[in-house]
Amino acid sequence: MSAPITAAAPSSDALVLASIANSIGTITLNNSTRRNALSEVLLDQVIAALDDFKTKEVRVVILRAFEGATVWSAGHDIKELPQANQDPLGYSDPLERALRAVRAFPAPVIAMVHGSVWGGAFDLVASCDMIIADETCSFAITPANLGLPYNTTGLMHFLGRLPINLVKELFFTAAPIKGNDAYKWGIVNHLVPSAELEAFTTDFATKITKKAPLAISVAKEQLRILTDYQPIAAQIFEQLQEMRRTVYDSKDYTEGIQAFLQKRPAVFTGK
Amino acid sequence: MSAPITAAAPSSDALVLASIANSIGTITLNNSTRRNALSEVLLDQVIAALDDFKTKEVRVVILRAFEGATVWSAGHDIKELPQANQDPLGYSDPLERALRAVRAFPAPVIAMVHGSVWGGAFDLVASCDMIIADETCSFAITPANLGLPYNTTGLMHFLGRLPINLVKELFFTAAPIKGNDAYKWGIVNHLVPSAELEAFTTDFATKITKKAPLAISVAKEQLRILTDYQPIAAQIFEQLQEMRRTVYDSKDYTEGIQAFLQKRPAVFTGK
Amino acid sequence: MSAPITAAAPSSDALVLASIANSIGTITLNNSTRRNALSEVLLDQVIAALDDFKTKEVRVVILRAFEGATVWSAGHDIKELPQANQDPLGYSDPLERALRAVRAFPAPVIAMVHGSVWGGAFDLVASCDMIIADETCSFAITPANLGLPYNTTGLMHFLGRLPINLVKELFFTAAPIKGNDAYKWGIVNHLVPSAELEAFTTDFATKITKKAPLAISVAKEQLRILTDYQPIAAQIFEQLQEMRRTVYDSKDYTEGIQAFLQKRPAVFTGK
Amino acid sequence: MSAPITAAAPSSDALVLASIANSIGTITLNNSTRRNALSEVLLDQVIAALDDFKTKEVRVVILRAFEGATVWSAGHDIKELPQANQDPLGYSDPLERALRAVRAFPAPVIAMVHGSVWGGAFDLVASCDMIIADETCSFAITPANLGLPYNTTGLMHFLGRLPINLVKELFFTAAPIKGNDAYKWGIVNHLVPSAELEAFTTDFATKITKKAPLAISVAKEQLRILTDYQPIAAQIFEQLQEMRRTVYDSKDYTEGIQAFLQKRPAVFTGK
Amino acid sequence: MSAPITAAAPSSDALVLASIANSIGTITLNNSTRRNALSEVLLDQVIAALDDFKTKEVRVVILRAFEGATVWSAGHDIKELPQANQDPLGYSDPLERALRAVRAFPAPVIAMVHGSVWGGAFDLVASCDMIIADETCSFAITPANLGLPYNTTGLMHFLGRLPINLVKELFFTAAPIKGNDAYKWGIVNHLVPSAELEAFTTDFATKITKKAPLAISVAKEQLRILTDYQPIAAQIFEQLQEMRRTVYDSKDYTEGIQAFLQKRPAVFTGK
Amino acid sequence: MSAPITAAAPSSDALVLASIANSIGTITLNNSTRRNALSEVLLDQVIAALDDFKTKEVRVVILRAFEGATVWSAGHDIKELPQANQDPLGYSDPLERALRAVRAFPAPVIAMVHGSVWGGAFDLVASCDMIIADETCSFAITPANLGLPYNTTGLMHFLGRLPINLVKELFFTAAPIKGNDAYKWGIVNHLVPSAELEAFTTDFATKITKKAPLAISVAKEQLRILTDYQPIAAQIFEQLQEMRRTVYDSKDYTEGIQAFLQKRPAVFTGK
Ligand code: NI
Ligand code: NI
Ligand code: NI
Repeated sequence: MSAPITAAAPSSDALVLASIANSIGTITLNNSTRRNALSEVLLDQVIAALDDFKTKEVRVVILRAFEGATVWSAGHDIKELPQANQDPLGYSDPLERALRAVRAFPAPVIAMVHGSVWGGAFDLVASCDMIIADETCSFAITPANLGLPYNTTGLMHFLGRLPINLVKELFFTAAPIKGNDAYKWGIVNHLVPSAELEAFTTDFATKITKKAPLAISVAKEQLRILTDYQPIAAQIFEQLQEMRRTVYDSKDYTEGIQAFLQKRPAVFTGK
Repeated sequence: MSAPITAAAPSSDALVLASIANSIGTITLNNSTRRNALSEVLLDQVIAALDDFKTKEVRVVILRAFEGATVWSAGHDIKELPQANQDPLGYSDPLERALRAVRAFPAPVIAMVHGSVWGGAFDLVASCDMIIADETCSFAITPANLGLPYNTTGLMHFLGRLPINLVKELFFTAAPIKGNDAYKWGIVNHLVPSAELEAFTTDFATKITKKAPLAISVAKEQLRILTDYQPIAAQIFEQLQEMRRTVYDSKDYTEGIQAFLQKRPAVFTGK
Repeated sequence: MSAPITAAAPSSDALVLASIANSIGTITLNNSTRRNALSEVLLDQVIAALDDFKTKEVRVVILRAFEGATVWSAGHDIKELPQANQDPLGYSDPLERALRAVRAFPAPVIAMVHGSVWGGAFDLVASCDMIIADETCSFAITPANLGLPYNTTGLMHFLGRLPINLVKELFFTAAPIKGNDAYKWGIVNHLVPSAELEAFTTDFATKITKKAPLAISVAKEQLRILTDYQPIAAQIFEQLQEMRRTVYDSKDYTEGIQAFLQKRPAVFTGK
Repeated sequence: MSAPITAAAPSSDALVLASIANSIGTITLNNSTRRNALSEVLLDQVIAALDDFKTKEVRVVILRAFEGATVWSAGHDIKELPQANQDPLGYSDPLERALRAVRAFPAPVIAMVHGSVWGGAFDLVASCDMIIADETCSFAITPANLGLPYNTTGLMHFLGRLPINLVKELFFTAAPIKGNDAYKWGIVNHLVPSAELEAFTTDFATKITKKAPLAISVAKEQLRILTDYQPIAAQIFEQLQEMRRTVYDSKDYTEGIQAFLQKRPAVFTGK
Repeated sequence: MSAPITAAAPSSDALVLASIANSIGTITLNNSTRRNALSEVLLDQVIAALDDFKTKEVRVVILRAFEGATVWSAGHDIKELPQANQDPLGYSDPLERALRAVRAFPAPVIAMVHGSVWGGAFDLVASCDMIIADETCSFAITPANLGLPYNTTGLMHFLGRLPINLVKELFFTAAPIKGNDAYKWGIVNHLVPSAELEAFTTDFATKITKKAPLAISVAKEQLRILTDYQPIAAQIFEQLQEMRRTVYDSKDYTEGIQAFLQKRPAVFTGK
Repeated sequence: MSAPITAAAPSSDALVLASIANSIGTITLNNSTRRNALSEVLLDQVIAALDDFKTKEVRVVILRAFEGATVWSAGHDIKELPQANQDPLGYSDPLERALRAVRAFPAPVIAMVHGSVWGGAFDLVASCDMIIADETCSFAITPANLGLPYNTTGLMHFLGRLPINLVKELFFTAAPIKGNDAYKWGIVNHLVPSAELEAFTTDFATKITKKAPLAISVAKEQLRILTDYQPIAAQIFEQLQEMRRTVYDSKDYTEGIQAFLQKRPAVFTGK
């Protein structure tokens, strides 16, 4: 899909690399064999890195893929999804926990994106405070490929960032949106040439480290509350939950998961 | 638990009897062998009767047990509850559908209660607009006996009627509350002697039939909205749903259901 | 319905008397010929008295009927209700304005009730912060007699004070609730003998004048917000508003108003 | 305003044409004499077509004007608006019912837009899940031309799609927004040349038919709830409703309707 | 005020005693010299005991005063309140933290009350799930004595338990409500003779220990959400906060605190 | 930063000039010595002008800086901010009052922007209904430079206009956004050449004066309610308020204010 930035693939055993420099914490998704799929192990390492950064009073976090990745992340590790009859996006699902860790982190988290971002990984970068990307970036929301019922707060993560008609296009088509369009629609804060991505992002993050951290932290938290805690009528929520259950109990859900694992197109029947 | 009002038990095959007189529809729970357990069949007959009453512009409904019942209703038909790993109180559960049918019925529904009211049957009478009972009445909320996670709207049905500390006592002890206390706490609108229960209720209903039906209907609907649609922050709702799932996936839930069916005390471990 | 407290009926022309003594403002409904019906003129005088009390930093208000009144107030002046096709309880309706003036008054307002309280007058005393009454008191909500669709905030005034099943009984039967029951259900804070009503109320009010007025004022305002501003889903509100419109556009509404004015029983058809 | 796509005007008597091919339902507004004004008859045919599509498990709907239309739709049929003293956008108004039918349809609805879209028709296409348009498109919200108070949920349809300052410009100026600007602001998902509009839209829709219909359906419903059911404080809603009533009871409302019907500029006085 | 239950006053240095027996944790407020005033030290010991109980899977907690106490607790330690210009009931205030610890404790907490309960201690027992008391009990809310602006969630703790007119009487008069009235109004779940209080409470708690702990825990949490997280319009909340600030910045607040510490009546001016 | 539009600086003593022509009211910020800093005096003059315009039934307001200003407004008058321990953005703060006056003004308010807009002035123009600007414009949100905790409704003013990731960038970097980007992101409705700004704005405003004022007024009010009154869970609001307090009580806040007044870079420590 794009030329590798560097030839060298990462060699470490860890799925995630974490480092701190100049009050900037960097988390690197580093699992090239699985294309940075968001497995429970990888996500727990992300969460652990954030926890560590918190104690060290890091002022900004950059979340990135290893150098040379053409897929920023392949998204949810489909093999870990329940095969049927269980909510695939429950509150304590590893991805959900990671999203909350990013959203509640008391300093800005910047997603630095080179390459394609799939499914749950789009929710992850959308849960970052800002996205800086290069021209190779693309973003897709894939539940419509899998027959998977998305959770309501997950949908809210997109509603706050994008006009609702674009959210719908992304969910209903599962088609990737490419760099320029992602920038036009505001998914991406800054679109910079590949060669400048890292320097631009570091410079951008450095400027934030000079600003007042407490004022930033409380503003981030206020915005989180305003977007994640939007109230919904109780009876309607229970109705939505039942609708979601009929989806993850359906044949289509099983078919979607199976087809993905067998690398063939799914055939959906609406049952 | 109480002396039978009349010696004659009902003989019909139907689990529910429905009749209309003087614009008053009467639904009689009529399954003495199962102590009016709220099985799907019985509840669908209740719903069907309400649907029929709606087309016939009944002005008040009386919901009662057959004459002589000492148990008004034994509550949820435990045999029909999922044994594990599925929400026992999903939105389309028969009891939930029946509660909504009563709550959304466009005219007042009066529960006339002689005898004991257990578990889901308490939610049913609490979903009626008013309760008229005699001294034999008692009411118990039994999820704490079964290890069953109640649904949020179900809890709201009680919160609107009772002080929260009483709601908690009822849920946490599963102990029945008897006539005078039920009246003191306002569960029951009127407590009348057994011998007068039927006449009092009919007279009470008759008075309502003279009143303006449209004004009553819209007030009932407004109150339903104000109580059933209370908004809750989306993320918190998903957290509650996950907590509920851990309960219906627990060993205690299985133990509670098994113990009930085997008529032995449950032994709970909190796992 | 009750023995007159004093033989002398009030002779003044004003529909409302207002006076201040010891930081206690007293508003006396004083229109015996119309049984203190809540006409626009009378209500504007109530509002004016409250406005005046506010500038004079009155610490408690007592709202009462003239001495000897057996009807505390007959409620909405039915002659002033729209005959058809217009919301009879719009936001700027005089009664609604008076209710808001009482609820937003920055000090406690005590309703002192001797005699019967009808319809909109019940909403008025329920909008007072506390009710002190004697054994002659009774309270009725009468829209079901008139075919009048109540407004949603009006229903909320009762929901916050009473269990929902009692609210429904009051609305669906339009029957008066008498002294002891009113006390049992908590409509009335204190039920005292007629002969002591005035002294008890004055003493009660005097104690409040010694307390911290700012702390009281902000607590009252917080409680007002918590009860009057309960959020409702926008689409559902519009649906309720349409339901209400079909009621005030109905034949029954016209019949209800006409029957009342002609002092005959209404015959409702549900159309 | 633009060259006709085809010379042939439609000849059928029906105001709306409906057809299904390859799981795509197409609804064609087909009333050239009235410029596809949204009369009750036309809207009921739209609703009927949607109902029919639902039973036939159509996977996507395309809503379009007849070929060659330069006006996609002229909007609300002004002749059917109440002349005065009644809410012109009540919950059961035909347009409101049609908007809800589109919004609640259990599969995506795509508006394919060639030509100008006026007033209520803008609300109709904004209620579609996505809009695909060509360079001839324009969109205007016209209540400020008519003196008509818009309903709150109607405003919410635009708030979710557009920045609030643009919503205000559209409402306050009633000026049409043209193709490129509509695309820039995200009103339109895709702007394609006229000659390609139909093929592009069909291709776009076809891709959706391959995706998992249940997952799409529940996501659409969740987004509908999140946008249509936003809670508002009850007392404030009643205040807004009263403000709206003063508008539709005003001289300006009558003037606006009359001027439109008489094809002359309205002269507003703010009374 | 009442005869001591036992002659022996507690001798331990700890302000709070904690013990576990038969899955029942008991926390005893044990500071007779300060009449169990809710100082930061005492409250932190309560919180610590709850934390410990949580790890030990206690199934019920009893919160009580030491034997022989005639004052269950004197409430907030006034000496620890800010003298001026700072919110005396901020979110991290020790009492607020203790209230949240009780409310969020994953098993029922029963307040066992002998003697008088003042101010913040009333909020503490109202935050317990149930109250069991004897005839010596009394309860008072005292901010109107101090000129202290209560916090909004604190008011909500009372609104969910009591009719609003009683909440207002309690706040506006600061007068204690005694045993029978407390029982009548539902503040107290059970009113039992002093001699039986301990046995009754232990027996009551023991029954709960046999019930399903997970079902109880999730119901308690659901009820907490429904009561503590009621949504309020953001702008109105900021307005309330400002009103509260004017109160704690007022002369009356300083006077109220000073008068209390000097054991003299406060003289309030409303400034 | 931009060429002066006219050489002549304003000479009047008034900080604000107000005039009306053709139903258009114009408010000119006119304090060149203080770069139109939003001091209490200046803001009270803005509010007074709006009050005056309201009585004169102005149909549109234009809010602008004096001709030749290169800084549209420098924002909050930092000298007037509390130095510590008090909410710098309380509900009755002059800027807050001015924002509400603009937002609640019953006709559209257009910000005409030439030059740079800083801090609170950005909130002021964002609270205007529409912004028309020229290529010299820039906008910055500066609390992260000052260590100042923004208020929740203030954040909401931006959330409704911009994608959340841009809101975060603006808050977290405090960097100015320039003309083209401001237009791209929808901050600005129209970006026109400097030479045409005044004529374009006047023409735009004039068109609005021809439209129906009541319909516009109610739509503006509905949109205000939908954006300013978004509900938030009470307990969470109190938590946010406490977080904000820790910020304005912090050393960083004092440092931020001092550094600004001393025209040196602040050194923040997160304490
Ligand atoms: Ni590449
Ligand atoms: Ni054309
Ligand atoms: Ni004692």
